[in-house]
Formats: sequence, structure tokens, C-alpha cells
Amino acid sequence: MRKRDDPRQRDKETDMKKDRSGNYFEDFRVGMRISHATPRTLTEGDRSLYIGLTGSRAALCTAETNARQLGFEHRPLEDLLVFNTAFGKTVPDISLNAVANLGYAEVRFISHVYPGDTLAVDTEVIGLKENSSRKSGVVYVRSTARNQHGREVLSWVRWVMVHKRDHGAACGEAMVPATEAAVPAERLRRSDYTARVREITAMTGFDDLWEDYAVGERIDHPGAMTINDSDHSLATRLYQNTARAHFDGHAMAANGGQRLVYGGHIISVCRALAYDGLENGLSMLAINGGSHVNPSHAGDTIACATQVLDKVDLGQDHVGGLRLRMIGVKNAGAASIAFPEPGEGRPAHPSNVVLDLDYTIAMPKRQR
Amino acid sequence: MRKRDDPRQRDKETDMKKDRSGNYFEDFRVGMRISHATPRTLTEGDRSLYIGLTGSRAALCTAETNARQLGFEHRPLEDLLVFNTAFGKTVPDISLNAVANLGYAEVRFISHVYPGDTLAVDTEVIGLKENSSRKSGVVYVRSTARNQHGREVLSWVRWVMVHKRDHGAACGEAMVPATEAAVPAERLRRSDYTARVREITAMTGFDDLWEDYAVGERIDHPGAMTINDSDHSLATRLYQNTARAHFDGHAMAANGGQRLVYGGHIISVCRALAYDGLENGLSMLAINGGSHVNPSHAGDTIACATQVLDKVDLGQDHVGGLRLRMIGVKNAGAASIAFPEPGEGRPAHPSNVVLDLDYTIAMPKRQR
Amino acid sequence: MRKRDDPRQRDKETDMKKDRSGNYFEDFRVGMRISHATPRTLTEGDRSLYIGLTGSRAALCTAETNARQLGFEHRPLEDLLVFNTAFGKTVPDISLNAVANLGYAEVRFISHVYPGDTLAVDTEVIGLKENSSRKSGVVYVRSTARNQHGREVLSWVRWVMVHKRDHGAACGEAMVPATEAAVPAERLRRSDYTARVREITAMTGFDDLWEDYAVGERIDHPGAMTINDSDHSLATRLYQNTARAHFDGHAMAANGGQRLVYGGHIISVCRALAYDGLENGLSMLAINGGSHVNPSHAGDTIACATQVLDKVDLGQDHVGGLRLRMIGVKNAGAASIAFPEPGEGRPAHPSNVVLDLDYTIAMPKRQR
Repeated sequence: MRKRDDPRQRDKETDMKKDRSGNYFEDFRVGMRISHATPRTLTEGDRSLYIGLTGSRAALCTAETNARQLGFEHRPLEDLLVFNTAFGKTVPDISLNAVANLGYAEVRFISHVYPGDTLAVDTEVIGLKENSSRKSGVVYVRSTARNQHGREVLSWVRWVMVHKRDHGAACGEAMVPATEAAVPAERLRRSDYTARVREITAMTGFDDLWEDYAVGERIDHPGAMTINDSDHSLATRLYQNTARAHFDGHAMAANGGQRLVYGGHIISVCRALAYDGLENGLSMLAINGGSHVNPSHAGDTIACATQVLDKVDLGQDHVGGLRLRMIGVKNAGAASIAFPEPGEGRPAHPSNVVLDLDYTIAMPKRQR
Repeated sequence: MRKRDDPRQRDKETDMKKDRSGNYFEDFRVGMRISHATPRTLTEGDRSLYIGLTGSRAALCTAETNARQLGFEHRPLEDLLVFNTAFGKTVPDISLNAVANLGYAEVRFISHVYPGDTLAVDTEVIGLKENSSRKSGVVYVRSTARNQHGREVLSWVRWVMVHKRDHGAACGEAMVPATEAAVPAERLRRSDYTARVREITAMTGFDDLWEDYAVGERIDHPGAMTINDSDHSLATRLYQNTARAHFDGHAMAANGGQRLVYGGHIISVCRALAYDGLENGLSMLAINGGSHVNPSHAGDTIACATQVLDKVDLGQDHVGGLRLRMIGVKNAGAASIAFPEPGEGRPAHPSNVVLDLDYTIAMPKRQR
Repeated sequence: MRKRDDPRQRDKETDMKKDRSGNYFEDFRVGMRISHATPRTLTEGDRSLYIGLTGSRAALCTAETNARQLGFEHRPLEDLLVFNTAFGKTVPDISLNAVANLGYAEVRFISHVYPGDTLAVDTEVIGLKENSSRKSGVVYVRSTARNQHGREVLSWVRWVMVHKRDHGAACGEAMVPATEAAVPAERLRRSDYTARVREITAMTGFDDLWEDYAVGERIDHPGAMTINDSDHSLATRLYQNTARAHFDGHAMAANGGQRLVYGGHIISVCRALAYDGLENGLSMLAINGGSHVNPSHAGDTIACATQVLDKVDLGQDHVGGLRLRMIGVKNAGAASIAFPEPGEGRPAHPSNVVLDLDYTIAMPKRQR
């Protein structure tokens, strides 16, 4: 961990022990910036494994001919392959000692990423709040991934509950950052799309475009996916995410549990299942918010349903935004899923809900 | 699903429900043509995962140097990676509501496919036969995969038993298409090979060429492969095949069963095991017929044996065809496999037989 | 199997049976040379799957930008992907009928291997020793992998206990080759590195360089990795390694056991875990010796610790060698690992030790 603005000097004796136990709550300071190890180049090989792990069928990404017909030079990488790779980079510094990943906000997919591109990720600590138990605290961070040209491709806020090393350690005053309920329309990517994106209907065979989705409409995605240990651990290793709860079955069993499925893999699986009913969707523009409501384990079967929350005007004739709420459940069918009102704070979900994600995609509009 | 010749208009109200429940028997008409979603580009990443999933060792595909030495510009993709990818494209339209995949015929490997090539697949319904129970029927289809230049690379006939949505629905008269017992010699690919293919013996270290195989000869392949859930579901997702029986362990368990291994993965595994004893085989030219005799599940160990059915004259000095029958079993050794005569209709197989495949490969001939 | 120096003529009748049962102890002769089937091209796809299977994070290999900044034209493939692929090639000829892989020596990583390179592997039998039981014997081999330009990239000695086909078969006099306790400094690769390798600290965020490691120092790597059947069989198939004990669960169960995890996968997993604490390590230079002390099976969780054995002067200002001993255990934490003295013969290890590996890596030195 390289802490650019951290004035602490490392104790040489301690250092010779090569202690890599990660950061605890009291190690973080608001304003601290961390450059994560190391940059990562993504390739067609990563895409193939991503398809093998999720069954992703996004038209723009599935064929080079599709991408060209839709007005792209090449087919970009799948959005959540990029997100999960960038996220994984932050784990050793931010969430190695995490109790739970509490939520996401302001996730912006700023530029497409292509095979051969290299992602470098850094993070700023934007908030800290010790828990009343004084055993842990919530760390709020904003992370940014840039490509090899230094261009921002992805940024996101997340907050995570992190253990304290020393329960008695003094912590500063709580600072909880304000986050937006949704990424505002003017901050959503729009420049990548031309009128040619309408040709996607000829690829997917479905005619449903932006105008064919109504606010409040619900889509029950027909598929379901059982997750095995190798599936989720292959995915999580591919992202070089080192969180122990996903890999160390021996330690989990010693605590009476089993390995947890990495939540980002659940998002990927649900998004792949959500192809059916949203076939003409282009890329993800934003994740407005989301939480891993309950954990998943090997053997769970995931299904999901989508509710259309909003139709977003991107100021473009050929493409609009669809703001969607995707709820994932384990060991139940999509038809069983309820969409509870958020109300104050978190919505009440039954114990089989594993994901409640609010995100925005680009969708071609009909020609007028 | 885009039905080019389907005159039915979609009900707008129904459409807003985004029903993606797939086609049922009564939705098919003889002569209907379906262009499947979406084209798919295959890459070296797909090949790597295919090798990881099957252990394939085909000399022509394993090394770029091999391919060049054998007279190719580049190493083509593995035949069954191509077949399974193309097949997967047809599933959402043809077999999402299938009871069983009954058989294959006239599978022709027309051109090699290379990394970077994009496959687009379409299907014509060539036969329909309602079952006497009136609960389901058999759909006969001919599918064709073309590359990005519009060139046919693969075509095949299969027939599949599909549920009826409404048992009382009226269905037209039965039409069962005639298929050939074997792809005739004159329709087998021959133009890709030059006399340089004989150099394959220097790569594999085995001298057995076309002349060294005798009609009736039997080869017991020494390997065996236990299949795990992640193996077969990774493979099936890689092919973007969405058939529920392979993925939804929750629904399968509710019916007292478990997920089925995709039959195409069994073919791939058997073909990889059949390397030993057929080392100098070049590409597959045809699958003349075949059936998935019994299902496989995670934990099954697959072994196989081959019988030489015929030696096919391709009119070439340097390469001939070998027509082979490969029988795969679960949880038994290759030596236990019997080769029952087809007799009338399907041959009688014990319950541990999972595959009975009749296919033709190209094999170099000795220099005279 | 092509035996260049083997004068035996194959019996034509036997040959028509296509017996591929592999070599037994009495089939080997000292001085015999075997060219293994077939060459293999490695690609970015293989790297992606390797990362997915192991979680490897080596900075030099993880990003193209890293490699260039460190003075390389491109990022090389991971050392153990290369080693395991080359090793796998030798299995059908050397160890198909092996009882156990007893040890390694003089493993030299001579040149980096890059995506697109093709490995061709051959082996010389350098020693033979029948066991007193006369049921098996130890075969000592030296194998060499060359790239498509004929340049040596890797060579190694291993010895393996192989069954006799016929217990009564006469065997020649024992010949046990001398091997070096460690690859001597002057035979370690040194030419690939320039002073730019010091920039690795900016990528990993850790400052520990060659000077910061002390002989005798111990590093407990914090991670742990549970291995599933699909993980190890995907890896082993990727290497086209056909050893039956890794794949045939039916036969293993018939003998009251279960499939064995390929030992090379254990090395890969341990090496990936050893990233934490050795972040600035460059490539592997040698494996001086090693043994798979006890077997591993699916469900085992692997952890490891490292002891610094020696600091090797490579005669370079900017890079030195670190000779390390890495001990891997199953279902125990790294802190529990002991480093017993070798004493005479093999060190005494408890039954949960799965790997004891003595290897040397390149590590940048501080600027003076």
C-alpha cells in the first residue's frame, strides 16, 4: 500500500517482518489517497473467461461485427468485467479486514474499455464513522480507474465496515459524505453512441427499444443460475480480488460457515440473466446505488427481476437512459420477487434476497 | 427471436410484458426461418478455455508451428468449440422448452474457423411431428453457421422434442424430413489439406495413418474424465447456451433431479479422450448421426471407445476419411463398452451409455 | 511416443491394437531421448485462465504498462504457467504409469516466454534405479523446453517412481545421476533486467527490495486458497497433462480414494499466495529442489510460508537473487508451518505439509 499523503514512517524492525495484515479502521484518514497495486491489462482472454463464468450475451460485446455495425471500431469489454477488475484492485488496501461491503453509490461508467487497455486504480478516503461498539467503523471511499492514457474510465463510491485493530484506539470525528441518490442525467456518458445503435434489433431479434419500456413495468427474467465454488472463486481470482472470505474455506468452516460468493459476481450473474427482456440494452451508464442484502454461498441458485424506475433523457435522438432496479434472489423464482419501497433507509427484504441494485443503461430509441 | 417469415403480429399489450418464455411446439411451422441472436466472435481466449475444459490436444490446433508445418496459415479453432458455439446460438429459439435433444444428422464441417472469426447462425424448420400424447412434438431443424464473410462454415440437422404450451392446440400434418445415414463422401471437405499434412507424425510421435486403421477395428481410449458442475456449466455458458436444465439446480432439485450436463460437452470430452489412438487425425469432416443415449450429471466419470466403421475415399492422395463410431459411458471403463448393431431404429444400449456418435475425420495417408 | 534412439521395432499386429498404455519402468534406457507430443502455443487466453485459477498477481506479468516501465517490450507469461505447460508435455511418455513424482532439481528458467510463443519439449533419460520390490523403479529425466526459434527457455530434472509392466523383467544396473543442491549463481539468468526494474516499487506500493530481506527471515503469507475439483482439473487440462490420478474419479474411488490435485497446481497456488511479502519479486530464476510431501485433494485449503535461505549475488548492480524455501500446508494457517532442517535425506514433515520447495527469484536492489 502506497499512501501518498501519509506522513507515518514505517518502523524498520516491523518492516523486516513483512507484515501484510492490511489496513484497519484506525489506519484510515479522511483525505488519504491510495494508489492500488498493480495496474492490470485486460484482454480477449479475460472476456472469454468472463463469458464462461456468467453467460453474458451483451450484443455490443459478443461479436466484433456487432460492434462495427453499431458504430464502434471494436467491441468493448463487458462493463462488469471492468468494474469487478477495478474493484478487485482496491481490496488489499480497503477491505481486506472488512466485516461487510455496505453499499455503492455514484458508480459512473465513463468510457468504454477495450482488450489491451490497462486499468490503474486509486482511491480517496471521503468519510469515516466509528461504530458505537468501537470494534469497527465505516470507511467511505471514492475510487477511480484510469486507462493507460490516463483517461478516467470508471469511478465509484462505496462504504465498507472495517474492523479496528485495537478497539481502544482513538478515532476522529465522524464524517459521512453526501452521495447522490442517482447519478444525474448530465453526468451520464452519451458521446459513444451514434444513430447506428438502432441496428441492434437486427442482431438480437427483439424490437423493444426505449419507448417500449414504461416506468413501473416489471420484467421477470426467465433464467436462473446455480453458482458453484469454482465459479465464484475463478471469477474473484480473475479480478485479483484477495478478500479472504471468498477463498479460505478452512477458516470459514472453523467459524461454522462457508466461503462467501463475491458480491460482484452476483451482480454479473444477475446482469447476464437480465439480458432476456432487455436485449437491446447497450452499455451500463451508472450504478446509482445498491447493496448485497444477504450473502450467497456455493450451491445457491440465483434468479432476478427488473423494475423500470425511470426513463432518462440523455438529450440524444437515438439513445435514452433506462433506470432499472434489479433484485436478485437465491433459491426462488423471479416471479416471487417483491419490489418494496425504499421508505426511510434500507427497504425491508426477505432473507432470500441477495441483491438490490439501482442502475442505468443506455437503450436505443426509435427513429422518429 | 426474429421470425422472418412469420406473419403473426405481436400484441402490443402482451409485448409490454416482455415475455421471453421461448417457443413451444405449436409456434413452429415448416419452412419458418429464424436468425439467431447474436453473432459471436471466437478468439484465442475461447480456445484456451476450451482446452482447460476438455483437455483437447488436436495437433493442428495446439500449436501455431504445427499448423504452419501442416500447410495452414494459422491454427484453426477446435471443431467442437465451433460446433458447440453455433449450436448454443439456436437454443433460445429452438430448444428452450425442449424435453430432450433426440438426434443429429448431416453435420458438415465445411470450413475451418479461426480466432477472430464471427459466427452468425440461422435455422430453417424442416419437419414437425406432434406426439400421440398431444403434450409435445418433435421439431426438425437445419441450422447453418456462416462466418463474417458470409461463407458457410458448418451446417447440421437436429431434432428435438418440444413441449406444447397448450395441449389442445391444433397442429398441422406430420412432416418428417429424410436425412442421409451418412454425409456422402462427395460432400465432405477436402480442399484444406495438402501433402504437408503427413508431417503430423513428427509432431505426435505416432506413425498410424489412414492405412493403419482397419474397418471393424476397435480402439479403447485409455483416459477417463470426471465432470464437475463448474466444468459443464462453464462450457455451456461459454457457448452462450441458455437451456435451463444445465443451470438451474434449484428447479431441477424441486423435481427430484439435478442439473444435466450439456450433451455437447460430453461430445467434446469424448473427442478429447479419443486423441489417444487417433493422434494423427486432422479435423472433423462430418457427424453422420448421434444421440445422447442417457443423461450425465456432475460427478460422472466419462470414458469412451471407438470402432472404425468405414474408410472413406476423398479422392486425394494425401488424406482419407475415417468414419468412426464413438461410444461414451459413465462410471465404467472403455473396455466394457459394447458396439451393438443399429438393427431397426436405435441400438439397445445399457443405461451407462451416454453417447453414441457416428462421425468422420480426415486422416493423412502414407506416401506411396 | 517417438523414441529417437530406440532400436526396437514395433510389432505390426500389436500396433493395429493402438495400445496407448504408456511406458513402464522396463521401457526406459539411460540415454534414451524422447520428443514429446505436441508443441504448444501459449496465448493471452492461457494467461487469463492461469490468473483465474491461481490469482497470480506478479507485477511484471499483470500489466503491459508495468512490463514496459520495467524495461521489457511486452509482459512475459507467468513462470509457472510456462513450467506446468512444459511439464504436462512430458507426462504421456514419462509418468503416465507413475506411482509418484518424487522430486525436482536444477529447474532453470532460462528465457522469458511471451504470448504467441510455442513450446516444444524433449527429454533425456539420465538415470534408472529399480526398487528392491522389483515392482517399480525410479526414472530420472532431464527435460528441455525450447521456443519456436529453437532457443532453450526452461530445463529441469525430475525423478519419478514408475510401475513395471512385468515384475519379473530384467533391468540394467542402477544409475543415479548427480544433481546440484542448488542451481549455481553463474547459471542463473541475469541478462533480462535493466536498472528500470527498480520502478516496480511504484507499482506494488511496497518498498522492500533485495537489501530488505535477511537470510533466515520468515514470511507468513496471509492468504489461503481452498481448491475445488474444477479448479485443479481445469488447470491440469490447460497444461494438457493427462495423468489419470487427476481426472478419473471413478477409478480413484474404486481404490477407496479420490482424485489427486496435480502438484504443479499446488506450486502455482503457493507462489500466488507468496506475492504478499515478496511483492517486488521479478521472475523465477530456478527451482533448486522440491517435493510434493503429501497429496492434496479437492476441498483442501492451502496456505504457505517462506524462509529466506540465501541472498545470491548475480554480479548486477540492480538485481540480486533471493533463494527461498516455501512450505505449503493444507487446512492449517501459515503461522503453524515449521522449517525443519533437511538433515540427511528428506526433512521430517507433518502430514499436513503438501509442498517443500527451494527456489530462487530475481529481486531489484536499491540504488546505491
